[in-house]
Amino acid sequence: MSDHTTAPTLVRDLLGSCPAPFNGYDRVLLGHGSGGRLSHDLITGVFLPALRNAVLERLEDQATCAVPGFADHRLALTTDSFVVRPIFFPGGDIGRLAVHGTINDLAVGGARPLFLTAAFILEEGLSLDDLRRVVGSMKAAADEAGVVIVAGDTKVVDRGKGDQIFITTTAVGLVPAGRALSAGNARPGDRVIVSGTIGDHGMAIMSVREGLEFETTLESDTAALHELTEAMLQASDGIRAMRDPTRGGVSSALNEIAIASNVGVELIETTIPVREPVRGACEILGLDPLYVANEGKLVAIVAAAAADVVVAAMREHPLGRQASIIGEITSEHPRTVVLRSVAGGARVVPMLAGEQLPRIC
Amino acid sequence: MSDHTTAPTLVRDLLGSCPAPFNGYDRVLLGHGSGGRLSHDLITGVFLPALRNAVLERLEDQATCAVPGFADHRLALTTDSFVVRPIFFPGGDIGRLAVHGTINDLAVGGARPLFLTAAFILEEGLSLDDLRRVVGSMKAAADEAGVVIVAGDTKVVDRGKGDQIFITTTAVGLVPAGRALSAGNARPGDRVIVSGTIGDHGMAIMSVREGLEFETTLESDTAALHELTEAMLQASDGIRAMRDPTRGGVSSALNEIAIASNVGVELIETTIPVREPVRGACEILGLDPLYVANEGKLVAIVAAAAADVVVAAMREHPLGRQASIIGEITSEHPRTVVLRSVAGGARVVPMLAGEQLPRIC
Repeated sequence: MSDHTTAPTLVRDLLGSCPAPFNGYDRVLLGHGSGGRLSHDLITGVFLPALRNAVLERLEDQATCAVPGFADHRLALTTDSFVVRPIFFPGGDIGRLAVHGTINDLAVGGARPLFLTAAFILEEGLSLDDLRRVVGSMKAAADEAGVVIVAGDTKVVDRGKGDQIFITTTAVGLVPAGRALSAGNARPGDRVIVSGTIGDHGMAIMSVREGLEFETTLESDTAALHELTEAMLQASDGIRAMRDPTRGGVSSALNEIAIASNVGVELIETTIPVREPVRGACEILGLDPLYVANEGKLVAIVAAAAADVVVAAMREHPLGRQASIIGEITSEHPRTVVLRSVAGGARVVPMLAGEQLPRIC
Repeated sequence: MSDHTTAPTLVRDLLGSCPAPFNGYDRVLLGHGSGGRLSHDLITGVFLPALRNAVLERLEDQATCAVPGFADHRLALTTDSFVVRPIFFPGGDIGRLAVHGTINDLAVGGARPLFLTAAFILEEGLSLDDLRRVVGSMKAAADEAGVVIVAGDTKVVDRGKGDQIFITTTAVGLVPAGRALSAGNARPGDRVIVSGTIGDHGMAIMSVREGLEFETTLESDTAALHELTEAMLQASDGIRAMRDPTRGGVSSALNEIAIASNVGVELIETTIPVREPVRGACEILGLDPLYVANEGKLVAIVAAAAADVVVAAMREHPLGRQASIIGEITSEHPRTVVLRSVAGGARVVPMLAGEQLPRIC
């Protein structure tokens, strides 16, 4: 991330132009789907007040529930709708994404995924060949990940009332006894680890949409992370929290952790891995890689003493080869993420306010 | 159902005009969402071949999975997307429907629902008041049913790429040891029971859409059936199979059972309960109540000796007051549903081919 002159401006613009939560607007905005502050507003302003219960209020990426009679394991549940546009993109498609994304939400909670369900909302006129291709790649992704798609549903909406194909996947898994990862567990001194380069998925989608040509094709990093997380959890019991930084990127994931744990996060810009073509594409489009979606990466908060062991374990796994410590948790500036730049300056990295990249997943 | 002169014609027209499965069309049609034969084609022609596994192939309304270490209970899973239009209708709204519909798919498998997840695809511009109303009614429906909504997701699509709100709910429940209901279990001599009047939901939706005025408002029957099914299962171990006849109506549910069990179904028209205003609306629109969606009814296949006990237990429950035996399973005409009419004639009631009532749920 050599040059952020445009990105902070973009973020400030979004912050500046964005009305206060539910103050001045009474309709859903595209930004409500961003994974950033407006999404947060929608969750805390509409869904949580209405659906309030102890499990949902934890606001983790997955729910874990004790099931009567099921001894010491906990059931883990997560659901995600996928509306990415275009449905085929370099490195994947909406089907692979739907399988990986939902597995990953379980994995970052320390759960072992077992079963998936898949519900399809098809637009009248969708080509059956495209549908076959998407469903085939879901099957391949599920097989690779060792999970079984056990239930499904299909609805069709009239032409112009959908957009080719939307997929909602729900995953069920088990959390072994004794595991209790949570975004609320971060403590000052903990290290922030990222599993590899950031921004690949979002920029792959954007480069297709914007028709950008690069020497290297930008490819989505879409991948199932549950084997990587299992290797990490086997290697150390010093892992406090993990998140997969999808919509809203690494910055939103870390802001959520900072808020949930009431701590500050300090990132060192030079340690954050970004592929050169992604960096280039971000500069052209005026985007900050910290806000760009990833679909095969995780951030972990790990006790300082365990950080090197965890990074070493991650680098043994194909999806963690470029794992790096990119910062640490601090008691300074609680609930705020700060980036120390190459030049030595520091800037706040707020939660994305509105929509930077609509329909990225 | 006094007069079916129009309905069979409609069905024949649909059958006649409809190309053979994937022979002559290569795009998704609205009818692929009907719950009838085209839906069946899509499932058997695209989804099953691609996703093939032992659980999915059972084609039940819910998947039940043995979970390692979880003793004798089986986990039950089901998922459904809801795209009903309009989102508010007499007797309910898309939120209540999404909770009830998914609970019911578990209930008819003998599972006790525990947890729900809810994923929202919102169209840019949806009124937040409408969203609040829908989410509030989901909460009320979940509370009434004693289930907890434990995880959620929200995506926003650009204006004109969705239609206000689509909701995908997934339910997790437990099937007690020893219960093994299946559409494949029906045997000649078994009785066919329906829990109450048919066609109420579909005709409530249609009357709003078509602007029909009746002396009585047609109301959706949307309701959670898991307490009724539990009462039935407690009353007798003679229950072979249950289905909730939603899209495609009672006829599609019974055709599925006839096919899965390789038996015939014989219905006695005079015994099938239909509310007068529903009958009237069906006649005006040329629809057959047997093909109209229900959202708070079930059909059960029950051993002859147990049928009276089961009906009596159903009538004790508010949702089963009008439970009736409407026919029986026969070894004659396997894989075919036949209706004996008031006049004494008999006609085949085939699976609905295309789309009779799009976006009914």
